[in-house]
Amino acid sequence: MQLNDDERIDYVIQDELQIIQSPTVFSFSLDALLLASFAWVPIKRGKIIDLCTGNGIIPLLLSRQSEISIEGVEIQERLYDMGTRSVVLNQLENQITLHRADLRDLPIELKRESYDAVTCNPPYFKSKRNEQRNLNEHLTIARHEVMCTLEDVIQSCSSLAKQGGKVSLVHRPERLLDIMTLMRKYRIEPKRMQLVYPKAGKEANTLLIEGIKDGKPDLKVLPPFTVYNGDNTYTDEMRAVYEEL
Amino acid sequence: MQLNDDERIDYVIQDELQIIQSPTVFSFSLDALLLASFAWVPIKRGKIIDLCTGNGIIPLLLSRQSEISIEGVEIQERLYDMGTRSVVLNQLENQITLHRADLRDLPIELKRESYDAVTCNPPYFKSKRNEQRNLNEHLTIARHEVMCTLEDVIQSCSSLAKQGGKVSLVHRPERLLDIMTLMRKYRIEPKRMQLVYPKAGKEANTLLIEGIKDGKPDLKVLPPFTVYNGDNTYTDEMRAVYEEL
Repeated sequence: MQLNDDERIDYVIQDELQIIQSPTVFSFSLDALLLASFAWVPIKRGKIIDLCTGNGIIPLLLSRQSEISIEGVEIQERLYDMGTRSVVLNQLENQITLHRADLRDLPIELKRESYDAVTCNPPYFKSKRNEQRNLNEHLTIARHEVMCTLEDVIQSCSSLAKQGGKVSLVHRPERLLDIMTLMRKYRIEPKRMQLVYPKAGKEANTLLIEGIKDGKPDLKVLPPFTVYNGDNTYTDEMRAVYEEL
Repeated sequence: MQLNDDERIDYVIQDELQIIQSPTVFSFSLDALLLASFAWVPIKRGKIIDLCTGNGIIPLLLSRQSEISIEGVEIQERLYDMGTRSVVLNQLENQITLHRADLRDLPIELKRESYDAVTCNPPYFKSKRNEQRNLNEHLTIARHEVMCTLEDVIQSCSSLAKQGGKVSLVHRPERLLDIMTLMRKYRIEPKRMQLVYPKAGKEANTLLIEGIKDGKPDLKVLPPFTVYNGDNTYTDEMRAVYEEL
Protein backbone atom coordinates (compact mmCIF):
# COMPACT_ATOMS: atom_id res chain seq x y z
CA MET A 1 0.00 0.00 0.00
CA GLN A 2 1.35 3.42 -1.06
CA LEU A 3 1.53 5.86 1.85
CA ASN A 4 2.27 9.57 1.62
CA ASP A 5 4.93 11.07 3.86
CA ASP A 6 2.66 12.20 6.65
CA GLU A 7 0.41 9.15 6.60
CA ARG A 8 0.43 6.09 8.76
CA ILE A 9 -1.61 2.93 9.09
CA ASP A 10 -3.46 2.69 12.39
CA TYR A 11 -5.04 -0.42 13.80
CA VAL A 12 -8.61 0.49 14.73
CA ILE A 13 -9.87 -2.78 16.14
CA GLN A 14 -6.90 -4.81 17.34
CA ASP A 15 -5.39 -6.30 14.17
CA GLU A 16 -8.70 -6.73 12.38
CA LEU A 17 -9.30 -3.30 10.88
CA GLN A 18 -6.65 -0.94 9.58
CA ILE A 19 -7.03 2.65 8.47
CA ILE A 20 -4.76 5.14 6.77
CA GLN A 21 -4.61 8.37 8.72
CA SER A 22 -2.50 11.47 8.96
CA PRO A 23 -2.25 13.59 12.06
CA THR A 24 -1.72 16.67 9.88
CA VAL A 25 -4.71 15.96 7.61
CA PHE A 26 -7.31 13.85 9.37
CA SER A 27 -7.54 11.23 12.08
CA PHE A 28 -10.82 9.77 13.18
CA SER A 29 -12.13 10.63 16.62
CA LEU A 30 -13.95 8.82 19.35
CA ASP A 31 -17.14 10.33 17.94
CA ALA A 32 -16.91 8.11 14.87
CA LEU A 33 -16.69 5.02 17.08
CA LEU A 34 -19.63 6.19 19.17
CA LEU A 35 -21.76 6.87 16.11
CA ALA A 36 -20.91 3.52 14.50
CA SER A 37 -21.95 1.82 17.72
CA PHE A 38 -25.09 3.93 18.26
CA ALA A 39 -26.50 3.94 14.72
CA TRP A 40 -29.01 1.34 13.71
CA VAL A 41 -28.00 -0.35 10.47
CA PRO A 42 -29.60 -3.22 8.57
CA ILE A 43 -27.50 -6.37 8.43
CA LYS A 44 -28.72 -8.50 5.53
CA ARG A 45 -30.80 -6.33 3.21
CA GLY A 46 -30.85 -2.72 2.10
CA LYS A 47 -28.10 -0.15 1.78
CA ILE A 48 -26.22 2.29 3.96
CA ILE A 49 -24.57 5.62 3.21
CA ASP A 50 -22.25 7.76 5.34
CA LEU A 51 -21.91 11.47 4.59
CA CYS A 52 -18.84 13.56 5.54
CA THR A 53 -17.08 10.22 5.69
CA GLY A 54 -13.54 11.63 5.98
CA ASN A 55 -11.06 8.79 5.70
CA GLY A 56 -13.92 6.29 5.63
CA ILE A 57 -13.80 5.29 9.28
CA ILE A 58 -17.56 4.84 9.66
CA PRO A 59 -18.10 2.67 6.56
CA LEU A 60 -15.08 0.61 7.66
CA LEU A 61 -16.53 0.12 11.14
CA LEU A 62 -20.05 -0.60 9.88
CA SER A 63 -18.74 -3.28 7.52
CA ARG A 64 -18.04 -5.34 10.63
CA GLN A 65 -21.70 -5.24 11.69
CA SER A 66 -23.44 -5.48 8.35
CA GLU A 67 -23.14 -7.54 5.18
CA ILE A 68 -24.79 -5.05 2.83
CA SER A 69 -23.50 -2.32 0.53
CA ILE A 70 -22.06 0.70 2.32
CA GLU A 71 -21.27 3.95 0.53
CA GLY A 72 -19.46 7.01 1.76
CA VAL A 73 -19.32 10.59 0.51
CA GLU A 74 -16.39 12.92 1.10
CA ILE A 75 -15.74 16.29 -0.53
CA GLN A 76 -11.99 16.49 0.10
CA GLU A 77 -9.85 14.70 -2.50
CA ARG A 78 -7.07 14.01 -0.02
CA LEU A 79 -9.36 12.28 2.49
CA TYR A 80 -11.34 10.49 -0.20
CA ASP A 81 -8.03 9.13 -1.49
CA MET A 82 -6.95 7.95 1.96
CA GLY A 83 -10.32 6.31 2.49
CA THR A 84 -10.25 4.53 -0.85
CA ARG A 85 -6.85 3.07 -0.06
CA SER A 86 -8.06 1.95 3.39
CA VAL A 87 -10.95 0.11 1.74
CA VAL A 88 -8.43 -1.75 -0.44
CA LEU A 89 -6.13 -2.33 2.52
CA ASN A 90 -8.95 -4.15 4.29
CA GLN A 91 -10.09 -5.95 1.11
CA LEU A 92 -13.54 -4.41 1.37
CA GLU A 93 -13.87 -3.18 -2.26
CA ASN A 94 -16.87 -5.44 -2.78
CA GLN A 95 -18.80 -3.93 0.11
CA ILE A 96 -17.66 -0.30 0.45
CA THR A 97 -17.75 2.36 -2.25
CA LEU A 98 -16.58 5.88 -1.53
CA HIS A 99 -17.62 8.85 -3.66
CA ARG A 100 -15.85 12.13 -3.92
CA ALA A 101 -18.76 14.56 -3.95
CA ASP A 102 -20.30 17.67 -2.45
CA LEU A 103 -23.29 16.73 -0.35
CA ARG A 104 -25.03 19.90 -1.51
CA ASP A 105 -24.94 18.56 -5.06
CA LEU A 106 -24.88 14.78 -4.87
CA PRO A 107 -24.25 12.78 -8.05
CA ILE A 108 -27.29 11.21 -9.62
CA GLU A 109 -26.08 7.64 -9.00
CA LEU A 110 -26.74 8.17 -5.30
CA LYS A 111 -30.45 7.50 -5.61
CA ARG A 112 -32.70 9.77 -3.60
CA GLU A 113 -35.06 8.30 -0.99
CA SER A 114 -33.43 4.89 -1.34
CA TYR A 115 -31.16 4.30 1.69
CA ASP A 116 -32.21 2.32 4.75
CA ALA A 117 -29.65 4.01 6.97
CA VAL A 118 -27.78 7.29 6.63
CA THR A 119 -25.00 8.20 9.06
CA CYS A 120 -23.05 11.43 9.38
CA ASN A 121 -20.36 12.89 11.63
CA PRO A 122 -20.47 16.42 10.23
CA PRO A 123 -18.26 19.44 10.92
CA TYR A 124 -19.21 20.74 14.34
CA PHE A 125 -18.18 24.33 14.43
CA LYS A 126 -19.99 27.25 12.94
CA SER A 127 -17.79 28.87 10.35
CA LYS A 128 -15.93 31.89 11.60
CA ARG A 129 -13.82 34.51 9.90
CA ASN A 130 -10.63 33.17 8.41
CA GLU A 131 -8.17 34.22 11.08
CA GLN A 132 -10.01 32.36 13.80
CA ARG A 133 -10.17 29.11 11.92
CA ASN A 134 -7.85 26.19 12.20
CA LEU A 135 -4.95 27.06 9.91
CA ASN A 136 -4.77 23.61 8.36
CA GLU A 137 -7.17 23.61 5.42
CA HIS A 138 -8.06 19.92 5.62
CA LEU A 139 -8.78 20.05 9.33
CA THR A 140 -10.70 23.29 8.89
CA ILE A 141 -13.03 21.78 6.32
CA ALA A 142 -13.52 18.65 8.40
CA ARG A 143 -14.26 20.58 11.58
CA HIS A 144 -15.94 23.82 10.55
CA GLU A 145 -19.06 24.47 8.55
CA VAL A 146 -17.03 25.85 5.64
CA MET A 147 -18.18 23.60 2.83
CA CYS A 148 -21.60 22.87 4.25
CA THR A 149 -23.88 24.06 7.03
CA LEU A 150 -25.74 21.85 9.46
CA GLU A 151 -28.84 22.52 7.39
CA ASP A 152 -27.09 21.28 4.22
CA VAL A 153 -26.08 18.13 6.06
CA ILE A 154 -29.53 17.31 7.40
CA GLN A 155 -31.26 18.18 4.14
CA SER A 156 -28.86 15.88 2.32
CA CYS A 157 -29.31 13.02 4.82
CA SER A 158 -33.06 13.33 4.41
CA SER A 159 -32.91 13.39 0.62
CA LEU A 160 -31.09 10.03 0.62
CA ALA A 161 -33.11 8.24 3.33
CA LYS A 162 -36.12 6.29 2.20
CA GLN A 163 -39.44 6.55 4.04
CA GLY A 164 -38.96 4.75 7.35
CA GLY A 165 -35.19 4.90 6.87
CA LYS A 166 -32.98 5.94 9.79
CA VAL A 167 -30.70 8.95 9.94
CA SER A 168 -28.05 9.01 12.70
CA LEU A 169 -25.83 11.92 13.59
CA VAL A 170 -23.14 12.72 16.11
CA HIS A 171 -22.75 16.37 17.10
CA ARG A 172 -22.32 18.70 20.03
CA PRO A 173 -25.10 19.07 22.64
CA GLU A 174 -25.05 22.87 22.24
CA ARG A 175 -26.61 22.35 18.81
CA LEU A 176 -29.36 20.04 20.03
CA LEU A 177 -32.15 22.49 19.37
CA ASP A 178 -30.86 23.39 15.89
CA ILE A 179 -30.42 19.72 15.02
CA MET A 180 -33.87 18.68 16.18
CA THR A 181 -35.53 21.64 14.51
CA LEU A 182 -33.77 20.94 11.21
CA MET A 183 -34.48 17.21 11.44
CA ARG A 184 -38.18 17.91 11.78
CA LYS A 185 -38.01 20.51 9.00
CA TYR A 186 -36.62 17.85 6.67
CA ARG A 187 -39.04 15.10 7.75
CA ILE A 188 -36.62 13.22 10.02
CA GLU A 189 -38.48 12.74 13.31
CA PRO A 190 -36.05 12.41 16.24
CA LYS A 191 -36.60 9.02 17.89
CA ARG A 192 -33.52 8.03 19.91
CA MET A 193 -31.02 10.26 21.62
CA GLN A 194 -28.04 9.56 23.83
CA LEU A 195 -25.83 12.05 25.61
CA VAL A 196 -22.18 11.25 26.07
CA TYR A 197 -20.35 12.54 29.15
CA PRO A 198 -16.54 12.55 29.30
CA LYS A 199 -16.60 11.60 33.00
CA ALA A 200 -19.11 11.19 35.80
CA GLY A 201 -20.19 14.59 37.11
CA LYS A 202 -19.17 16.48 33.93
CA GLU A 203 -21.43 18.16 31.40
CA ALA A 204 -22.25 16.19 28.24
CA ASN A 205 -19.89 16.95 25.35
CA THR A 206 -21.31 14.74 22.62
CA LEU A 207 -24.80 14.10 21.30
CA LEU A 208 -25.91 11.00 19.44
CA ILE A 209 -29.28 11.27 17.74
CA GLU A 210 -31.27 9.09 15.38
CA GLY A 211 -34.46 9.92 13.54
CA ILE A 212 -36.79 8.15 11.19
CA LYS A 213 -37.89 9.64 7.91
CA ASP A 214 -41.59 10.46 8.24
CA GLY A 215 -41.63 8.73 11.63
CA LYS A 216 -44.14 9.53 14.36
CA PRO A 217 -43.08 11.76 17.27
CA ASP A 218 -41.82 9.62 20.16
CA LEU A 219 -38.36 10.54 21.39
CA LYS A 220 -36.52 8.17 23.73
CA VAL A 221 -33.53 9.34 25.72
CA LEU A 222 -31.18 6.39 26.23
CA PRO A 223 -29.16 5.95 29.43
CA PRO A 224 -26.22 8.34 29.68
CA PHE A 225 -22.94 7.13 28.22
CA THR A 226 -19.73 7.90 30.13
CA VAL A 227 -16.38 7.54 28.36
CA TYR A 228 -13.72 7.73 31.08
CA ASN A 229 -13.41 6.58 34.66
CA GLY A 230 -12.01 8.95 37.26
CA ASP A 231 -8.52 7.59 36.60
CA ASN A 232 -8.81 8.30 32.83
CA THR A 233 -9.15 4.66 31.86
CA TYR A 234 -12.08 3.71 29.62
CA THR A 235 -15.31 2.80 31.37
CA ASP A 236 -16.74 -0.67 30.89
CA GLU A 237 -19.33 0.71 28.46
CA MET A 238 -16.63 2.39 26.36
CA ARG A 239 -14.66 -0.84 26.33
CA ALA A 240 -17.83 -2.62 25.25
CA VAL A 241 -18.09 -0.28 22.23
CA TYR A 242 -14.64 -1.40 21.12
CA GLU A 243 -15.51 -5.03 21.65
CA GLU A 244 -18.80 -4.78 19.82
CA LEU A 245 -17.38 -2.92 16.80
CA MET B 1 -55.98 24.10 60.50
CA GLN B 2 -59.24 23.01 58.85
CA LEU B 3 -58.82 19.84 56.78
CA ASN B 4 -61.40 18.33 54.45
CA ASP B 5 -62.26 14.65 54.76
CA ASP B 6 -59.85 13.35 52.17
CA GLU B 7 -56.99 15.68 53.08
CA ARG B 8 -53.95 15.07 55.20
CA ILE B 9 -50.89 17.03 56.26
CA ASP B 10 -47.65 15.60 54.91
CA TYR B 11 -44.21 16.48 56.12
CA VAL B 12 -42.16 17.41 53.06
CA ILE B 13 -38.80 18.16 54.59
CA GLN B 14 -38.53 16.35 57.91
CA ASP B 15 -40.57 18.42 60.33
CA GLU B 16 -39.68 21.76 58.76
CA LEU B 17 -42.17 22.03 55.93
CA GLN B 18 -45.74 20.76 55.95
CA ILE B 19 -48.19 20.57 53.10
CA ILE B 20 -51.87 19.75 52.82
CA GLN B 21 -52.49 17.07 50.25
CA SER B 22 -55.17 14.66 49.22
CA PRO B 23 -54.49 11.40 47.42
CA THR B 24 -57.81 11.73 45.63
CA VAL B 25 -57.24 15.32 44.51
CA PHE B 26 -53.57 16.13 44.27
CA SER B 27 -50.29 15.09 45.84
CA PHE B 28 -47.02 16.56 44.76
CA SER B 29 -44.59 14.33 42.90
CA LEU B 30 -40.85 13.88 42.84
CA ASP B 31 -40.84 16.16 39.79
CA ALA B 32 -41.71 19.15 41.96
CA LEU B 33 -38.75 18.43 44.23
CA LEU B 34 -36.44 18.01 41.25
CA LEU B 35 -37.61 21.26 39.68
CA ALA B 36 -37.27 23.21 42.95
CA SER B 37 -33.73 21.91 43.25
CA PHE B 38 -32.82 22.47 39.58
CA ALA B 39 -34.32 25.93 39.04
CA TRP B 40 -32.18 28.98 39.52
CA VAL B 41 -33.88 31.49 41.81
CA PRO B 42 -32.64 34.81 43.16
CA ILE B 43 -32.14 34.89 46.91
CA LYS B 44 -32.18 38.51 48.09
CA ARG B 45 -33.70 40.64 45.34
CA GLY B 46 -36.34 40.27 42.67
CA LYS B 47 -39.44 38.11 42.51
CA ILE B 48 -40.43 34.59 41.61
CA ILE B 49 -43.61 33.09 40.21
CA ASP B 50 -44.69 29.47 39.83
CA LEU B 51 -47.38 28.56 37.30
CA CYS B 52 -49.58 25.44 37.56
CA THR B 53 -48.63 25.53 41.21
CA GLY B 54 -51.13 22.86 42.34
CA ASN B 55 -51.12 22.74 46.14
CA GLY B 56 -48.25 25.22 46.23
CA ILE B 57 -45.44 22.72 46.69
CA ILE B 58 -42.90 24.62 44.58
CA PRO B 59 -43.41 28.04 46.24
CA LEU B 60 -43.21 26.28 49.61
CA LEU B 61 -39.95 24.58 48.69
CA LEU B 62 -38.45 27.70 47.11
CA SER B 63 -39.20 29.72 50.26
CA ARG B 64 -36.47 27.70 51.93
CA GLN B 65 -33.85 28.85 49.42
CA SER B 66 -34.91 32.42 48.85
CA GLU B 67 -35.97 35.40 50.94
CA ILE B 68 -37.92 37.24 48.24
CA SER B 69 -41.56 37.32 47.22
CA ILE B 70 -42.87 34.12 45.64
CA GLU B 71 -46.19 33.93 43.89
CA GLY B 72 -48.08 30.95 42.56
CA VAL B 73 -50.91 30.57 40.05
CA GLU B 74 -53.41 27.71 40.09
CA ILE B 75 -56.62 27.42 38.09
CA GLN B 76 -58.36 24.83 40.28
CA GLU B 77 -60.21 26.27 43.28
CA ARG B 78 -59.76 23.10 45.31
CA LEU B 79 -55.98 23.03 44.90
CA TYR B 80 -55.65 26.79 45.29
CA ASP B 81 -57.52 26.47 48.57
CA MET B 82 -55.27 23.65 49.81
CA GLY B 83 -52.20 25.65 48.84
CA THR B 84 -53.40 28.77 50.59
CA ARG B 85 -53.97 26.84 53.81
CA SER B 86 -50.51 25.26 53.52
CA VAL B 87 -48.98 28.73 53.25
CA VAL B 88 -50.72 29.67 56.51
CA LEU B 89 -49.77 26.36 58.12
CA ASN B 90 -46.11 27.17 57.49
CA GLN B 91 -46.53 30.83 58.47
CA LEU B 92 -45.32 32.01 55.09
CA GLU B 93 -48.12 34.51 54.33
CA ASN B 94 -45.58 37.32 54.20
CA GLN B 95 -43.52 35.65 51.50
CA ILE B 96 -45.91 33.51 49.42
CA THR B 97 -49.04 34.70 47.61
CA LEU B 98 -51.14 32.28 45.62
CA HIS B 99 -53.55 33.44 42.91
CA ARG B 100 -56.45 31.53 41.57
CA ALA B 101 -56.22 32.29 37.87
CA ASP B 102 -56.12 30.89 34.36
CA LEU B 103 -52.63 31.23 32.93
CA ARG B 104 -54.14 31.98 29.52
CA ASP B 105 -55.73 35.08 30.98
CA LEU B 106 -53.59 36.23 33.87
CA PRO B 107 -54.86 39.02 36.15
CA ILE B 108 -53.34 42.43 35.57
CA GLU B 109 -51.68 42.52 39.00
CA LEU B 110 -49.24 39.89 37.78
CA LYS B 111 -47.05 42.38 35.97
CA ARG B 112 -45.77 41.26 32.58
CA GLU B 113 -42.03 41.07 31.92
CA SER B 114 -41.29 41.64 35.60
CA TYR B 115 -40.27 38.30 37.17
CA ASP B 116 -36.67 37.21 37.69
CA ALA B 117 -37.57 33.54 37.79
CA VAL B 118 -40.59 31.63 36.52
CA THR B 119 -41.05 27.96 37.34
CA CYS B 120 -43.67 25.53 36.11
CA ASN B 121 -44.50 21.84 36.48
CA PRO B 122 -47.27 21.73 33.86
CA PRO B 123 -49.69 18.95 32.88
CA TYR B 124 -47.68 16.40 30.91
CA PHE B 125 -50.14 14.52 28.81
CA LYS B 126 -51.71 15.64 25.59
CA SER B 127 -55.44 15.84 26.04
CA LYS B 128 -57.30 12.81 24.80
CA ARG B 129 -60.94 12.06 24.33
CA ASN B 130 -62.95 11.91 27.52
CA GLU B 131 -63.13 8.17 28.00
CA GLN B 132 -59.37 7.75 27.99
CA ARG B 133 -58.74 10.41 30.54
CA ASN B 134 -58.23 9.98 34.22
CA LEU B 135 -61.73 9.85 35.66
CA ASN B 136 -60.92 12.13 38.56
CA GLU B 137 -61.51 15.67 37.35
CA HIS B 138 -58.88 17.28 39.60
CA LEU B 139 -56.20 14.81 38.63
CA THR B 140 -57.18 15.04 34.98
CA ILE B 141 -56.74 18.81 34.93
CA ALA B 142 -53.45 18.56 36.78
CA ARG B 143 -52.05 15.86 34.48
CA HIS B 144 -53.55 16.45 31.06
CA GLU B 145 -53.49 19.44 28.79
CA VAL B 146 -57.19 20.07 29.33
CA MET B 147 -57.13 23.62 30.64
CA CYS B 148 -53.97 24.67 28.84
CA THR B 149 -51.61 23.37 26.19
CA LEU B 150 -47.85 23.29 26.42
CA GLU B 151 -47.82 26.33 24.16
CA ASP B 152 -50.13 28.22 26.55
CA VAL B 153 -47.77 27.36 29.41
CA ILE B 154 -44.60 28.50 27.69
CA GLN B 155 -46.21 31.63 26.28
CA SER B 156 -47.43 32.53 29.74
CA CYS B 157 -44.03 31.86 31.37
CA SER B 158 -42.43 34.10 28.78
CA SER B 159 -44.94 36.89 29.23
CA LEU B 160 -44.11 37.07 32.95
CA ALA B 161 -40.30 36.74 32.73
CA LYS B 162 -38.31 39.91 32.44
CA GLN B 163 -35.49 40.21 29.93
CA GLY B 164 -32.67 38.06 31.24
CA GLY B 165 -35.09 36.31 33.59
CA LYS B 166 -35.01 32.53 33.90
CA VAL B 167 -37.81 30.12 33.05
CA SER B 168 -37.52 26.55 34.40
CA LEU B 169 -39.75 23.66 33.53
CA VAL B 170 -40.04 19.98 34.35
CA HIS B 171 -41.61 17.75 31.73
CA ARG B 172 -41.25 14.44 29.89
CA PRO B 173 -38.27 13.84 27.57
CA GLU B 174 -40.61 12.81 24.74
CA ARG B 175 -41.67 16.45 24.50
CA LEU B 176 -38.13 17.83 24.38
CA LEU B 177 -38.36 19.00 20.79
CA ASP B 178 -41.77 20.62 21.30
CA ILE B 179 -40.57 22.33 24.46
CA MET B 180 -37.38 23.70 22.94
CA THR B 181 -39.16 24.84 19.81
CA LEU B 182 -41.84 26.63 21.82
CA MET B 183 -39.29 28.15 24.19
CA ARG B 184 -37.43 29.66 21.25
CA LYS B 185 -40.70 30.78 19.67
CA TYR B 186 -41.50 32.72 22.84
CA ARG B 187 -37.98 34.17 23.25
CA ILE B 188 -36.84 31.79 26.01
CA GLU B 189 -33.47 30.47 24.85
CA PRO B 190 -32.74 27.01 26.35
CA LYS B 191 -29.54 27.22 28.39
CA ARG B 192 -29.42 24.36 30.89
CA MET B 193 -30.91 20.92 30.62
CA GLN B 194 -30.74 17.86 32.83
CA LEU B 195 -32.16 14.42 32.14
CA VAL B 196 -33.42 12.36 35.03
CA TYR B 197 -33.17 8.57 34.90
CA PRO B 198 -35.17 6.38 37.29
CA LYS B 199 -32.25 3.92 37.58
CA ALA B 200 -28.88 3.27 35.99
CA GLY B 201 -29.31 1.68 32.58
CA LYS B 202 -32.91 2.89 32.13
CA GLU B 203 -34.19 5.49 29.67
CA ALA B 204 -34.69 9.01 30.97
CA ASN B 205 -38.23 9.67 32.21
CA THR B 206 -37.99 13.31 33.29
CA LEU B 207 -36.58 16.43 31.68
CA LEU B 208 -35.47 19.56 33.55
CA ILE B 209 -34.88 22.58 31.36
CA GLU B 210 -34.11 26.24 32.01
CA GLY B 211 -33.99 29.06 29.53
CA ILE B 212 -33.25 32.76 29.64
CA LYS B 213 -35.54 35.35 28.15
CA ASP B 214 -33.76 36.81 25.12
CA GLY B 215 -30.62 34.84 26.05
CA LYS B 216 -27.95 33.83 23.56
CA PRO B 217 -27.91 30.25 22.23
CA ASP B 218 -25.58 28.11 24.37
CA LEU B 219 -27.19 24.98 25.75
CA LYS B 220 -25.42 23.03 28.47
CA VAL B 221 -26.42 19.46 29.30
CA LEU B 222 -25.77 18.82 32.97
CA PRO B 223 -24.60 15.44 34.25
CA PRO B 224 -27.35 12.81 34.27
CA PHE B 225 -29.40 12.56 37.44
CA THR B 226 -30.36 9.11 38.71
CA VAL B 227 -33.11 8.75 41.31
CA TYR B 228 -32.94 5.16 42.58
CA ASN B 229 -30.21 2.66 43.26
CA GLY B 230 -30.61 -0.91 42.06
CA ASP B 231 -32.20 -1.82 45.40
CA ASN B 232 -34.84 0.96 45.07
CA THR B 233 -33.27 3.17 47.74
CA TYR B 234 -32.58 6.80 46.84
CA THR B 235 -29.21 7.53 45.27
CA ASP B 236 -26.82 9.88 47.06
CA GLU B 237 -27.72 12.66 44.62
CA MET B 238 -31.43 12.22 45.28
CA ARG B 239 -30.78 12.28 49.01
CA ALA B 240 -28.76 15.45 48.45
CA VAL B 241 -31.81 17.09 46.83
CA TYR B 242 -33.79 16.46 50.00
CA GLU B 243 -30.98 17.78 52.15
CA GLU B 244 -30.50 20.89 50.06
CA LEU B 245 -34.19 21.79 49.87
